[in-house]
Amino acid sequence: MTARSPLAPEKFPDLPVIAGIRLAAGEAGVHYQGRTDLLLVEMAPETTVAGVFTRSLTASAPVDWCRRALVGGGAQGLVVNSGNSNAFTGKLGVASVDRIVEAAADVLSCRPSRIFTASTGVIGEPLADDKITAALPGLQSDLAADSWEDAARAIMTTDTFPKGASASADIGGHTVLINGIAKGSGMIAPDMATMLAFVFTDAAIAAPVLQQLLSDGTAKSFNCITVDSDTSTSDTLMLFATGAAGNDLICSVDDPRLAGFRSQLDALLIDLAGQVVRDGEGARKFITVTVSGAEDDGAARRIGLSIANSPLVKTAIAGEDANWGRIVMAVGKAGERADRDRLAIRIGGVDVAADGMVVKGYDEKPVAEHMRGLEIEIGVDVGIAGGTATVWTCDLTHGYITINADYRS
Amino acid sequence: MTARSPLAPEKFPDLPVIAGIRLAAGEAGVHYQGRTDLLLVEMAPETTVAGVFTRSLTASAPVDWCRRALVGGGAQGLVVNSGNSNAFTGKLGVASVDRIVEAAADVLSCRPSRIFTASTGVIGEPLADDKITAALPGLQSDLAADSWEDAARAIMTTDTFPKGASASADIGGHTVLINGIAKGSGMIAPDMATMLAFVFTDAAIAAPVLQQLLSDGTAKSFNCITVDSDTSTSDTLMLFATGAAGNDLICSVDDPRLAGFRSQLDALLIDLAGQVVRDGEGARKFITVTVSGAEDDGAARRIGLSIANSPLVKTAIAGEDANWGRIVMAVGKAGERADRDRLAIRIGGVDVAADGMVVKGYDEKPVAEHMRGLEIEIGVDVGIAGGTATVWTCDLTHGYITINADYRS
Repeated sequence: MTARSPLAPEKFPDLPVIAGIRLAAGEAGVHYQGRTDLLLVEMAPETTVAGVFTRSLTASAPVDWCRRALVGGGAQGLVVNSGNSNAFTGKLGVASVDRIVEAAADVLSCRPSRIFTASTGVIGEPLADDKITAALPGLQSDLAADSWEDAARAIMTTDTFPKGASASADIGGHTVLINGIAKGSGMIAPDMATMLAFVFTDAAIAAPVLQQLLSDGTAKSFNCITVDSDTSTSDTLMLFATGAAGNDLICSVDDPRLAGFRSQLDALLIDLAGQVVRDGEGARKFITVTVSGAEDDGAARRIGLSIANSPLVKTAIAGEDANWGRIVMAVGKAGERADRDRLAIRIGGVDVAADGMVVKGYDEKPVAEHMRGLEIEIGVDVGIAGGTATVWTCDLTHGYITINADYRS
Repeated sequence: MTARSPLAPEKFPDLPVIAGIRLAAGEAGVHYQGRTDLLLVEMAPETTVAGVFTRSLTASAPVDWCRRALVGGGAQGLVVNSGNSNAFTGKLGVASVDRIVEAAADVLSCRPSRIFTASTGVIGEPLADDKITAALPGLQSDLAADSWEDAARAIMTTDTFPKGASASADIGGHTVLINGIAKGSGMIAPDMATMLAFVFTDAAIAAPVLQQLLSDGTAKSFNCITVDSDTSTSDTLMLFATGAAGNDLICSVDDPRLAGFRSQLDALLIDLAGQVVRDGEGARKFITVTVSGAEDDGAARRIGLSIANSPLVKTAIAGEDANWGRIVMAVGKAGERADRDRLAIRIGGVDVAADGMVVKGYDEKPVAEHMRGLEIEIGVDVGIAGGTATVWTCDLTHGYITINADYRS
C-alpha cells in the first residue's frame, strides 16, 4: 500500500452515535484479502433518503439501482463493497445487484426497494456477489452504533486514510447530529458526487427537502473538487435522515428552522470533499483556487476547474514553481469571458500579476516560500463582473503515475 | 536536455526547395544559449496566406497580430522565436510585436502588415525584442532555399526532435510541392492548431481557398491530437502559398483540380500533428483512438478526446496495462450518447468487450503483447449511429512530471 498522504488529518474524528443508525464492516474477500471490504448499514424504518450520482453515461448497475430506489424516498439499509465496482458488467451486473439487495432485505427484514447499494473498485469484472450475500448475515449480528471508523475503512480502495466528519445543529429546539464518511481517490472530477460518500443524520426531514439540501450542498463541495478530471462510473453521495432526534418533520426547504442544519451540512460536505482531495492519488499539496470577477458563479467555477484540472498547473505546483503563466493559460482555455488586460493573480496572498502583466517589482521570495508549504492558495480575478467560486484540487506528482500505471497488477 | 523521444522518426525527412521560399535560422539569445532560437522566412511577393490560431481567450500578442494581418491575404515574411512566448506581457508585448514586424519589414522590403510572427516559450516575461531585431539583418544575409531542418530546429522548445514533412500533388498538369515544419510539445490540446506549425507550398491558390483548405485539414489533424489537454496561448498554424509552381490561380475551393492537393495537404497535416504527439512530453507510446458508432462525427471526436485526455487511460497505457475499464469510464464521461449495453472495445485489433461486457473467453495474451509495443491501437464502437473519428495521443509517464515540475529552473 501507498504511504499515508502527507495531507491527511492527524486522526479520524470522533463520530457520535446517530440514533437510528447501526453499522458493521466485514471481510467478504471480493478482491482484497486481509482487510475489510464490505459495509452494512441498518437504518430506522422512518429514515428518509436523498442521493446524487455520477453523470457518466456508462453508470454502474448499483448506480442505476439507487436512482430507481430513490423514488420511494425511504431507506432501511445500505450495502457497500470495495474492490470491484460492478460497472460495465452487463446483465450479470444487474443480476448481482438484485441478489445483493434481496439478501440485505432478508437480513434487515424490509423490502428490497428500501436497500441502497454501491460498489467501488475495478471496472468490467463480474462481481462475486455470492461472497457478499454469504457475508451479510454475519454482519447483521455485528451491527453496532459506534462502528464509524470501521465503516469508513471498509469502503476504501486506493485511499491512504479513512475519511469522516461530524457536525451538529439545532432544529426547532432539538439538537440533531450529522455524520459522514467518504472514500476517493482516483477518477475524481466535478459534475458527480465523489467516488462514494454517505451522510447520516437523526434529523426528521422529508425526502424532497433532503434531496434539495443535498443537491445544493453538493454544488459547492463535491462538484467543486477534482483530482484528475476523470469521472467514475460509480460516484454516489447519499444522505440518510432517521428522524430519531425528535424534531417536527421538516416539509419545506424554506423552513427557517433549517438554516443552521443547512449551513452545518454544507460545511460537512466541504470537509469530506476536501478530505477526498487530500487523499488524491499521489497528492503532496492541497490547492485552493478562488476565482472572482467572472461573468457569473458558474463561469467562475468553470475557470477554477480549468485551472485545477490543468496538468501543467498541477505539475508546476508539484515542482514548487510559482509558474503563474500556466495559470493564465488555464484561464484562457476555460472558454469563459476574461479580460486579459485586467487579469490579476495572487499566490499565497501575494499579488503576482495585475492589469494583464506581472506586478512592478514583483518579489518572488514570499511566493516561493508559500509554494514550499502543503497548502497552496491561488486567487484569480478575471475582471469581468461579480461571479465567484472556490475549487479544490491537489498537485500532480510522480506518485499519481506510479499508482495508476500499476493499479491492476 | 531530455533524450530523443523513442517515438521519433529515424531522421528528419528530405524537404525539397519550394520556389519562392527562403529561410534562415540564427541565435538571438532570447532565452536559450548555445542553440538557434530565431527563424526568418522570406516569401515571394505573390504569396497568399491562411492561418488558424489558439482559441484561448488569453491569446498572446503575436497571435493577435497574425489574426489582424491575415485579413490582407498576403504574406512576405515570417519571424518566429523560441524561449519566450510574449504572452501575458500587456502593452509591452504589443510594442515588442510592433518593433519585430517593423524590423522584419525593413529587412525584407515590404509593409509590416505582410509580416507574420509567432513566439513560443515561457509565458509572462517581457520579450527581449531588441535581441531579435538586432539579429534580423544577419539572418537576411543567411536566407537560403534549403534550410528546412535548421528552421525546424530553431522553433523547438522542449521538443526532442525537429519535425518536418513534405508532399507533392498535381494541379492542372503542374506539380506543386508542400513542405511543413512544426514544434510541440506541451500544452497540446484540441481546438487549436498546435504550438506552432508552418506549411509552405508553391501552388497558386487564392487566400480564401487556402483558408478553407487549412481549416478543413486542421479539423482532422491538429484538432484531433492531444498531449495533456492544455491549450497554449500561442498556438499558430499557417499555410503560405507562393504561386511559383505556375499553375492557374485556384479561386474556388470546389475546383476539381484541387482534389489531389487537398488530400496531400490533409495527409501532411496529419503527419506533422502525429510528430507533435510522438514528441509529447514524456511520451513513450503513440496511441491511435478510433471511435465509431457515434451520433455524428463531432460526437465521435469528443468521445475520442475524452479517452485520449483521460489521465487514467494514459497512465494505464504507460504501465502497459490493457485496462479497458478505464476506456469505458472515459466514454461515459464524454457527455455524448453511448449505448452501454452495445459498447464494443478493440485493443490492437483484438475484441476485448462487446455488447456491454468482456467477450466470452477473452484471452489477454495477444492484447498484453500489443501493449508492450510503441504503437497502441484502441477501437471503440458506441452503438448509436454512424459517426466516426480518429484521435491521436501519447501516454502519461513519469517523464511528463519530471519535465513539467522543473521547466522554469
